[in-house]
Amino acid sequence: MTNESPLTKEMILDAAEQVLRRYGPDKTSVIDIAKFLQVSHGTLYRHFSSKAALREAVTERWLDISIAEPLQEIADRAEGSAAEQLRLWVETLIKKKRMHASDDPEMFVMYADVTVRIGDMIAMHINRLIKQIASIIERGMQAGEFKPDSADAIARAVFMATESFHHPAHAQEWSSEMIDEDFETVWRLILSGLK
Amino acid sequence: MTNESPLTKEMILDAAEQVLRRYGPDKTSVIDIAKFLQVSHGTLYRHFSSKAALREAVTERWLDISIAEPLQEIADRAEGSAAEQLRLWVETLIKKKRMHASDDPEMFVMYADVTVRIGDMIAMHINRLIKQIASIIERGMQAGEFKPDSADAIARAVFMATESFHHPAHAQEWSSEMIDEDFETVWRLILSGLK
Repeated sequence: MTNESPLTKEMILDAAEQVLRRYGPDKTSVIDIAKFLQVSHGTLYRHFSSKAALREAVTERWLDISIAEPLQEIADRAEGSAAEQLRLWVETLIKKKRMHASDDPEMFVMYADVTVRIGDMIAMHINRLIKQIASIIERGMQAGEFKPDSADAIARAVFMATESFHHPAHAQEWSSEMIDEDFETVWRLILSGLK
Repeated sequence: MTNESPLTKEMILDAAEQVLRRYGPDKTSVIDIAKFLQVSHGTLYRHFSSKAALREAVTERWLDISIAEPLQEIADRAEGSAAEQLRLWVETLIKKKRMHASDDPEMFVMYADVTVRIGDMIAMHINRLIKQIASIIERGMQAGEFKPDSADAIARAVFMATESFHHPAHAQEWSSEMIDEDFETVWRLILSGLK
């Protein structure tokens, strides 16, 4: 069976995401995705060389749409207190990660797995996020709200110092009763370090 | 075959650690450990109810001896700058974790695995470490070197804000070229937050 309409990457990723969610990453085969799209698996392999490449592309798109893009909107707001903006940015990242860990477990497991294996793709995602933090910090430094320093280095440090609250390896800790209080204290330390 | 000398927990743990290191956690059975000790596996089961319990006890002892006890020595030094003592404590934790990840991979893998599964044992280990940090911070606050605050809450925050550098889930990141520079910046943020 072949479908006559031209097959775009976007269509394949939509289908792959649906099938991966339904059967889970381990049980999904490229043939399942081809069947879902009513194309031959040869057609699919012309776009993605392996199931691993498809999983990576689905996860990458999910990270862009569900994490990096909404955070970019916050980073782009160039008014008001930079400290409040930075706090909102970090809190939004943390909330999104917690929400996906509990409400979207299929994608979260795929993402947590990719975080360990696909270093390059995750490094790009993290660099994108750190650039967003750097732009907020840069603005805070220019406004005299934060001490002058290397905005890039400080942005990496803010990201790393809050990893317990947003890195998927720590997802089990997010249900702790103390997690919000802990974040509050870490945030207080970071903020008084910035000022 | 039975051995006539009384079998102590310490002897079992010594044997279990040697056998686990040699064959790896997956391939080691309680029978292997019993053979190594020249006792029946029934004798062993009187001390430890399962292979999992044995693995947990071996890992717990390894964490005590290789991590918590040497750090306790640093925490007990009640003179000089608390900031320098805290930095030495955190750096020693980081160095020990990095060293074990590269030089003692068998135990490190067991420990990383236990970190995910055996929440209670790891929580106790972490609480012990956080108490050590709290004692340093308490001293720094009393000496006026650190701002007055809840030493316990700040100690948790210092531990969590540095997890990228010592939590086993981040071991892959420790070979990054930027890791020392990153720690330097995180440390600078934390320290100026404490002062």
